Amino acid sequence: MKKIDLLVVGGSAAGIVAALTARKYNKNASIIVVRKEGKALVPCGIPYIYGTLKDPAKDIIPDKLLLDKNIEVVVDEVKSLNKDEKTVTLSKGEKIGYGKLILATGSVPIVLPLPGINLKNVFTVIKDIPYLQGLMAAIEKARDVVIIGGGFIGVEFADEFRKRGLNVTIVEILPHCLQLAYDEDFCVIAEKKLTERGVNLKTNNKAEEIIGDESGKVKGVKLSSGETLKADLVLVGVGVRPNTELAINAGLRIGEQKGIWVDEYMRTSDEDIFAAGDCAEKYSFFTKKPSALRLASIAAREARIAGVNVFGLRRKNPGVIGSFSTIIGDLALGVAGLTERQAKEAGFNFVTGSATVLDKHPGAMPECKEMRVKLLFEKASKVLIGGQVAGGPTTAEVTNILAALIEKKATAEEVAIFQYGTHPALTCSPINYQIAEAAEDALTKF
Amino acid sequence: MKKIDLLVVGGSAAGIVAALTARKYNKNASIIVVRKEGKALVPCGIPYIYGTLKDPAKDIIPDKLLLDKNIEVVVDEVKSLNKDEKTVTLSKGEKIGYGKLILATGSVPIVLPLPGINLKNVFTVIKDIPYLQGLMAAIEKARDVVIIGGGFIGVEFADEFRKRGLNVTIVEILPHCLQLAYDEDFCVIAEKKLTERGVNLKTNNKAEEIIGDESGKVKGVKLSSGETLKADLVLVGVGVRPNTELAINAGLRIGEQKGIWVDEYMRTSDEDIFAAGDCAEKYSFFTKKPSALRLASIAAREARIAGVNVFGLRRKNPGVIGSFSTIIGDLALGVAGLTERQAKEAGFNFVTGSATVLDKHPGAMPECKEMRVKLLFEKASKVLIGGQVAGGPTTAEVTNILAALIEKKATAEEVAIFQYGTHPALTCSPINYQIAEAAEDALTKF
Repeated sequence: MKKIDLLVVGGSAAGIVAALTARKYNKNASIIVVRKEGKALVPCGIPYIYGTLKDPAKDIIPDKLLLDKNIEVVVDEVKSLNKDEKTVTLSKGEKIGYGKLILATGSVPIVLPLPGINLKNVFTVIKDIPYLQGLMAAIEKARDVVIIGGGFIGVEFADEFRKRGLNVTIVEILPHCLQLAYDEDFCVIAEKKLTERGVNLKTNNKAEEIIGDESGKVKGVKLSSGETLKADLVLVGVGVRPNTELAINAGLRIGEQKGIWVDEYMRTSDEDIFAAGDCAEKYSFFTKKPSALRLASIAAREARIAGVNVFGLRRKNPGVIGSFSTIIGDLALGVAGLTERQAKEAGFNFVTGSATVLDKHPGAMPECKEMRVKLLFEKASKVLIGGQVAGGPTTAEVTNILAALIEKKATAEEVAIFQYGTHPALTCSPINYQIAEAAEDALTKF
Repeated sequence: MKKIDLLVVGGSAAGIVAALTARKYNKNASIIVVRKEGKALVPCGIPYIYGTLKDPAKDIIPDKLLLDKNIEVVVDEVKSLNKDEKTVTLSKGEKIGYGKLILATGSVPIVLPLPGINLKNVFTVIKDIPYLQGLMAAIEKARDVVIIGGGFIGVEFADEFRKRGLNVTIVEILPHCLQLAYDEDFCVIAEKKLTERGVNLKTNNKAEEIIGDESGKVKGVKLSSGETLKADLVLVGVGVRPNTELAINAGLRIGEQKGIWVDEYMRTSDEDIFAAGDCAEKYSFFTKKPSALRLASIAAREARIAGVNVFGLRRKNPGVIGSFSTIIGDLALGVAGLTERQAKEAGFNFVTGSATVLDKHPGAMPECKEMRVKLLFEKASKVLIGGQVAGGPTTAEVTNILAALIEKKATAEEVAIFQYGTHPALTCSPINYQIAEAAEDALTKF
């Protein structure tokens, strides 16, 4: 039986980063990444295959990244895990022994128990090239597309499908698209842009049935409002659930949010087994309670923690802040930390501050766009606990400034005089730099 | 005699922000801004008048910003200040009494004691519309331009002049352009781009004489190398000195770097007079020693401190980190905190880490560019003390993330697992996000 020092199960963001990080701090360990899929996809790039990249093969993470660092890649499925023996068994019965194991088995799309869900041309988002090629072949012949779910995945696919000129409708059960990520004021900005881009929105609306034709192919979607939408393709993007079958069968502890339970070192209930990414349970930075956030950036960060810790505990996970962005046409939206809704739910008293300014200076600079920022500060401590940004191409990195300030518990006073640099072609003006302005606005309200 | 609560002398970045900030925290105070210039210019926008904006009138900060907040603007020169009487005297002898005074008199360009400096078509950078219109008229007829000084101003003007197709040469006394701001490795990247953009570089070279024709107009520049460059226009950009005449005459204390001495509250040696911006002395965040840094963003930040403190001391200035960016063609460069050279000079032991990655993901995303990051961590504490970035349009905000992490004294471990968000069209990949990668690289070297 082959025995290796570190076995990583799963080869997407978490698996790759866990293996690469472990290698950085241990030049001699034998490391294997076992993954089911023939090729590793850039997970967040998947929507962009359908309008921008135009080919799933352009959304690949090359194995060279791992091979160059002397990490072996095995394309196979891990069928079972025996934590007492410290072995895994592959699909043809081959066993591999491990010193340490990292589970990075990711997540699987939630399947809606909807009549007609198995009809032809009903797709979901599966991180597998042949499946995504199937979606590509179908989309090339489609005209009327219904997307069930107005979260990030739904919105990004809708925007990409519009680049192909398709008639696209989003069906969202909540009052607004992106409502789990942003406050209503930012959702409204997003929805305005979606509408401007020609996407039809059916919010406050539930898909009740997917209707097929005599050949078993989708032809429409029946909504709770009574309306039936014409559809020759349906995409379901209503979230994911952690892929924990292997862990459950091996007897590992599972958390409240259904992820593999981990401690602050990303260690599971077995001391030689770590977990990272979508399969692992997450905890809020703010409340320390289990969190439902699942993002590639969080996966990579957890993998940086697990990858160091497998060879000796050093890094602690302070819990997830949640920092993420999207783009609709030329409007980018970012969020870091808590929204007003989330802050209320978590029992925080808070003060908000806002600023809407131009993202270059003077305003006559080419491609200048409006940028809107809203910040939330905890009332008693004045510590920054959340921020939302809507604007141009720097939106995501501006959001990352907020993430840094949140994680380092900056106060409103500190944020107001934070030492930003500015440049006419690259940032807002020194006079009304968006983050400082929003903090000043909040400070006048305490 | 008119008496007002707060008098601000100077109406550029510091003056405007000081007045606006004071107003935010005091709705009823009478506030006047007195400035010499008819219109307020966006200071860092000045180079961009000459290739991008094409008109000085597009680089204006509108007075509306102040007027809307019930702040009076007086266009006049303050000739003298009597701190015992608490009055200033304007050009026609009119006196104004003040409760509190903020000096935001800015800086003036250093005039080189060079033969021929007063020839026709020899310009410097003066924040005054008629002067800048004169430069515009001259540049429209120019063909061969010599820029003396390869700092930010020189490099930005060179890049703009190239947009007009002019033959542009930069003369720089140091071995590299931008050498006071960046380490050699980043200067070389900048110089490569300048050369690619068609700018001629004469580094390690001193302008010894500006040569005129019989009409008193410039026709060439003689260099220390012996070479004489043809020139029908010369722009001198070799730095600025604090404009402190008013303060000196009033008997205020002056600092080592020739700025108006201020304490951590931006208060001068007179308790009712504050100073902010280029005219005020600065202190390093890292060493607490006087600093020669002068930037609009620093001016705005100091004004946010002074503007709050005039009506009661509250905000402290932790000293300048220094965070700034520039762009040459499509290559942006940013720096926050100490470079390797500066860290050595200040006596720090440090470890560096670097990463060169793509700024979108996958690399097939449109307009994807390479981004290079170098970070410096203090050796014993592992605290981040500096960073340099070269890349695409998000470079300045990425540099601002570094500024936030430096100010909040993040350690290499914290930077490596910093909670960035990512998006295919907006940021580097979650797998190798530039800042985390550079921190990991450093961590393997401690």
